[in-house]
Amino acid sequence: MSGADDPADEFEWIAKGLRPLTDGAPEAFDLLDDAAAIPTRPGFDLIVSTDAMVEGVHFLADDPLDLVAGKLLRVNLSDLAAKGAEPYAYFLALAWAADCGWARRRAFAAGLRETQDRFGLRLLGGDTTSTPGPLSASATILGWVPAGAMVRRAGAQAGDAVLVTGTIGDGWLGLAAARGGLTTLSQADRAWLADRYRSPRPRLGLGAALRQSANAACDVSDGLAADAANIASASGVGVELDLDRVPLSAAARAWLATQPDPVGARLGLASGGDDYEIVCTAPVSSVESLKAAFAAQDVELAEIGRIVSRPGLRVSCAGRAVAVNRTGFRHR
Amino acid sequence: MSGADDPADEFEWIAKGLRPLTDGAPEAFDLLDDAAAIPTRPGFDLIVSTDAMVEGVHFLADDPLDLVAGKLLRVNLSDLAAKGAEPYAYFLALAWAADCGWARRRAFAAGLRETQDRFGLRLLGGDTTSTPGPLSASATILGWVPAGAMVRRAGAQAGDAVLVTGTIGDGWLGLAAARGGLTTLSQADRAWLADRYRSPRPRLGLGAALRQSANAACDVSDGLAADAANIASASGVGVELDLDRVPLSAAARAWLATQPDPVGARLGLASGGDDYEIVCTAPVSSVESLKAAFAAQDVELAEIGRIVSRPGLRVSCAGRAVAVNRTGFRHR
Repeated sequence: MSGADDPADEFEWIAKGLRPLTDGAPEAFDLLDDAAAIPTRPGFDLIVSTDAMVEGVHFLADDPLDLVAGKLLRVNLSDLAAKGAEPYAYFLALAWAADCGWARRRAFAAGLRETQDRFGLRLLGGDTTSTPGPLSASATILGWVPAGAMVRRAGAQAGDAVLVTGTIGDGWLGLAAARGGLTTLSQADRAWLADRYRSPRPRLGLGAALRQSANAACDVSDGLAADAANIASASGVGVELDLDRVPLSAAARAWLATQPDPVGARLGLASGGDDYEIVCTAPVSSVESLKAAFAAQDVELAEIGRIVSRPGLRVSCAGRAVAVNRTGFRHR
Repeated sequence: MSGADDPADEFEWIAKGLRPLTDGAPEAFDLLDDAAAIPTRPGFDLIVSTDAMVEGVHFLADDPLDLVAGKLLRVNLSDLAAKGAEPYAYFLALAWAADCGWARRRAFAAGLRETQDRFGLRLLGGDTTSTPGPLSASATILGWVPAGAMVRRAGAQAGDAVLVTGTIGDGWLGLAAARGGLTTLSQADRAWLADRYRSPRPRLGLGAALRQSANAACDVSDGLAADAANIASASGVGVELDLDRVPLSAAARAWLATQPDPVGARLGLASGGDDYEIVCTAPVSSVESLKAAFAAQDVELAEIGRIVSRPGLRVSCAGRAVAVNRTGFRHR
C-alpha cells in the first residue's frame, strides 16, 4: 500500500514519521542533530538498558509491525520496571529490510506512538539504515531512579523469599498459539495467549515498593528458572524453586490439564521465557508488606521459593527434586 | 579457528569477551544486570548518539572484525567530537550472523578494547542476539558536555564562515581502494586511503574551542556538501561552498590529477561521505582564534564557504556555479 503522502526519501520519513515521536522534547533538537543532550537530574541516576529484536528470531515475519514496535518498547520498559525505575525516553537503531515500504514503516511508527503515550516515553534520537537481511531493531531505553536506589540482580541474601508477579508461561504458550498451535485450547484462550506474547505488559508502577523492600529483582525474559538462577548467581548464593507454587493463568492451567507429563509441562512453563513479569527476592519479614503494596496496584505477587547460601539452582515439583542445568532443563 | 579456551555459551562469552571491556566501571554492574545506572554529574549534560553498521552496507564482508568494531566506536566518537563533548561510555546491540564463530567475536572484542583504550571509553551494557541475516551492530555512545554548551547543528548565523578540519574525500576514495580500485594510484596511496576508510580518526580534543567559538557543527559522515546543507537547513539559513577551497590529501590530489573532469571529481570528493572530519560555522571575527586553537592540537582548519540568509545549498568550483540537489549532486 502506498499513497500520495508517501515521503520522498529518508530525510522526509524521519521528519514526517519519527520527529513527531519526540513530542517536542528539547533534548531531541527535533532529530535535526546527531546527538541528544540530557540535562542532569539532581538526586537521580539515569538507568540505561538496550534490547534488540530481529525478524525471524524475536518476532514472526508476518507479525504486524505496530505490534513489533510496541513489543520492542515493552520489553525494554520491563527492564526499567524490574529495576524500580521510572520511564523517561528512548533511542532507536533501525535496519530496514529492502522490501519494507512506507506503509510498514508507518505501522512501526504508529506502534511506537501508541506505546510511548501509554507508558510515558519520548523518542530522543537514533539511526536508521538499510540491511540486505531481515528487519532488525534495537532500542536503548532510559529511566530515572533515586540516586543509588536501582534494584539490582546482585542483591539477593540467603533466607530471602523468592517472589514473582502475575502468571508464568503465557509468553511461551503465546508463541505456540501465534504460530497456530495449541489447537486443543479454546479460540479465546489461544487469542489471549498470543496477545500475551505479542504485547507484554511491563510491570511499571511498582518501583517504590521494590526499592523499599526487594533485595534483588529482574524481569522474566529468559525464563523464570533461568532468571531466578541468574539473580542467585550474580548474588553469590543459590535458589530453590517450587514449581507447584508458580502462578499460572486459566489458559495455562487449561493447557496443563491436557499434558501427559505434568512435571515436564510445568518445567516448560517455567523455562519458556517472554513473560516480562518481575521476579524478586525479599526478606521473609517484608513479604506481606510487599504483597500488599503490589495488590494496591492490582498486581498479584506469589512466593515461589527461597534463596539459600549454597550456590546453584534447585527445582522441586510435586515434592520431588527435578534435575536442571544452567541455561535450561533436563527433566529426570 | 577455534581453541580450547572457546566459551561454552553466550553467558560465558559475555563474561570472558565483553565483561573486561567495562574496566570495572561500577555503573556497569559487571554486565550481570539488565541495566546500567549512571550517576548524575552536576553542571554537565549527557550527550547521547546512536550509529548502526550492517555488513554489506557499511563494511565489507571480508573486513577484519577488529577494524569493524573500531570503526563502529570511531564513527560514534566523531559525533561526540563535533558536539564538543568528552567521551564517556557506550552500549552495544550486536546481532551475530550464524556463521560468526568465537574467533571472529574475539576479534570484534579486541577492536573494541584497542579503540576504547585509545579514546577513553568503557562498555556499560547492551544486548547480543543472533540473526539469519548479515552481522549488524549498533552502538549508543555517551559523552559529557558542560550544561547547555553542546555545539548544535541548528546554530549557524548568516555571515558565518564555514570551516572544515583535515582533508575531505579520503573516506570515499578509501572505500574504492579497499574494494581493489584506484589502480592508477601508488600502492602506498591506496593503502593510506583504505586505512582512512576503515579507521576514521574522530577529531576529539577540540571541544573547548568549538564550544567557545563555533555557532554550529556536525561531523562529515554523509558528505561535506550534504552535511553543510543540513547545518544550514536546520539553522534556517543557506550555505555557499567553494569546492576549490576544500582541503585535499596528497593521495586525493594524486587521484584528482588523473581525472578527466576535475569539477565532477571535486564534487565527488565533497559528496562521498565517511570523512569523519568536523564541519562548523563561526563568526568571521572568530576564525583566526579558532584556527589557532585547532593548530595547537595539530589540526588544520580550512575556510571553505559562507553562511547566507537565503536558504539552500550553493556550490561553486573554478569560479562557476555547480547545480546540486538536496541529497546529492547534479553536475552541470
